[in-house]
Formats: sequence, C-alpha cells, structure tokens
Amino acid sequence: MLKFVTSNPRKFVEAQEILSDFELVQVELQVPEIQGKARDVVRRKTTDVLEQIDGPFFVDDTSLEFSAMDGLPGIYINDFLRKLGPEGLFKMLESFGNKRAFAVAWIGYADEKGDIEIFEGRVEGKIVKPRGETEFAWDPIFQPLGFEQTYAEMGVKEKAKISHRKKALEQLANYLAT
Amino acid sequence: MLKFVTSNPRKFVEAQEILSDFELVQVELQVPEIQGKARDVVRRKTTDVLEQIDGPFFVDDTSLEFSAMDGLPGIYINDFLRKLGPEGLFKMLESFGNKRAFAVAWIGYADEKGDIEIFEGRVEGKIVKPRGETEFAWDPIFQPLGFEQTYAEMGVKEKAKISHRKKALEQLANYLAT
Repeated sequence: MLKFVTSNPRKFVEAQEILSDFELVQVELQVPEIQGKARDVVRRKTTDVLEQIDGPFFVDDTSLEFSAMDGLPGIYINDFLRKLGPEGLFKMLESFGNKRAFAVAWIGYADEKGDIEIFEGRVEGKIVKPRGETEFAWDPIFQPLGFEQTYAEMGVKEKAKISHRKKALEQLANYLAT
Repeated sequence: MLKFVTSNPRKFVEAQEILSDFELVQVELQVPEIQGKARDVVRRKTTDVLEQIDGPFFVDDTSLEFSAMDGLPGIYINDFLRKLGPEGLFKMLESFGNKRAFAVAWIGYADEKGDIEIFEGRVEGKIVKPRGETEFAWDPIFQPLGFEQTYAEMGVKEKAKISHRKKALEQLANYLAT
C-alpha cells in the first residue's frame, strides 16, 4: 500500500491510473511549503510529512518556469495563478520576448525506512494567450512543444499521456518496480 | 537585551539606530520561510526561531506588493529580485497600467514568555524604471508617494526617515516602551 499525500482528488485519480500496479491510498495533511529551490522545497515537504506519517508515501509539487524570468514564477505558481488567473500570468510575461516555459512535476517519495527520493517530470512548451477551458490551473496558457493545442484544449486523457505529472509518476513507477 | 535574528549587518545597524533605547544583539540563524500570506509567514518564522532561542527577539521580512498583481510578488520579492533584478521587476509590470505598489516591512517579536506580536510598516509608492544606485535590493524601482526620488536616489539617511522598515521598527519600539 502506497500513500499519496494530497488534498486534490483529481490528482489522486490520475496517479492511481498511472501507478496501476500499486494500491494507492489518499492521505490529506496540512503541510506548509517553504520558499526556495523546487528540489529543496519538495525534499523539505517530504521530511515534514515523515514527521507525521510513515512511508511508503509520496508528495507532489508543481512548478511553471518562464525561461525569460529565469524560472519564475516556478513553485510560486499556485499563488500567482490564484491571484492573477491565466490572463494575468500571460500579461506578466507580455513584455518579455521569450515565451518558452517548462511545466515541471516534482515527486518526493519516502520508503518504509524513511529514505527519500526526488523525481522530476519536465515538459517544454510556450506560454500563449489563454485558450480552452480554464477549469484546471494554468492549462489554458501552456502549449507543449510539438503540439498545436494548449493543455486545456487537449482534453484530460490526451494531456495525461504527455503531461509533466505523467512523466514524474512514471519515474516513480519505474523506481518502485526495481 | 534584545536579539535581532538577521544575517544582514546593514539591517542590524539600521535597527539599532531606530531602537536606540535598547541594546540589540545580532543573531544569525538559518530559518526557512514558508509560502503563504505575509502575516502567516512571519508568524511561522517567529515560532520556528522560538524553537531555537528564547525571547525577547525579533525577526523581519519584507514584501513588495504590486497592486496590479493583487499584491504579488509580495514576500517572494527576494527570489524575484535575485532572478530578475530591478530591470526585470519593472518589465514584469510593464504590461499592467497600474504601477501602484506597497513596500511592507514585517516584524515578528517574541517576548521572554514566548508570546508573539506582529508589526507591519507600510509605505505606498509606485514602480518606476530603475533610477539611482542599485546597491540595495529593489530600491531603484520604488518611488514613495509624495517624493520625486526613488528609495535608491534618496540616500541611506533620508530613506531611513520614511522607510517601511522604519515604520515597523517604530511600532516595535512603541510596543516595547509600554
């Protein structure tokens, strides 16, 4: 049994699909996230959760990195999305010529002994004027490289095949399988 | 004796000047800051320091709030400044019409019993193209309301008279005096 510490049922369902060989259990915990580099933030989140529950479990975090802004808003994307919305995020980047961006999923995994591994799933793309349903996060402004559609225009299933979260979860699945 | 937990000697000197009735001692500690609302972040920082040293002490934090961005970058200003510089911060706001901003100094104070008080010093101003020495933080892009100069153009002494940090430290001084 593998615990996924998240308060987001949608993420949980997605993770269970990708980690179909494992029995996932959703655990909800309040864990404040620190400021800093993404990898450090996820590691700290994992150790903080370890003080509350035993492994094996994993936590996740997401960053949206604008190349023109040296990787920002990065892990602060949740606050930025909540306050600016997809329109405002696009606007923030409007004065910069370079629209390249990376969607990054981070997973912090702790095994039953408390050893920690960090996995990173990274998808290159560009930031565009919002297109598609705004139901999920910043999906309307992120168009992955090699696609004509934004995450939001793709539909859940198609996105799930190529997403940053998919990549990170696959790394976790591979790690668990060995 | 009152401890000021900071790794910034410049801030320490400034604080000692304003809190001239008190004997300040600088203490350096590594305390990660969490993400979230400024007041919560400062409170958490204070309680985290309380686990390492006894009061009375105070910690500080700064936020730079762009009104057009609903208060962002706010407490994330340090990361934004480090990655974008004053030029990049100005550029980020370029597409937004409203240039109003607030410079905010936060102080978390813990007394000898561990009781906590939060003080907030707030200065309204606007974000301008960088002017003046870039030696200190985002001073070149912040022009306080009622002044023709940016913080950077003012010179240390003049700025210290009207700054957000001055306001917060005065609140602390008043609190300690009563």
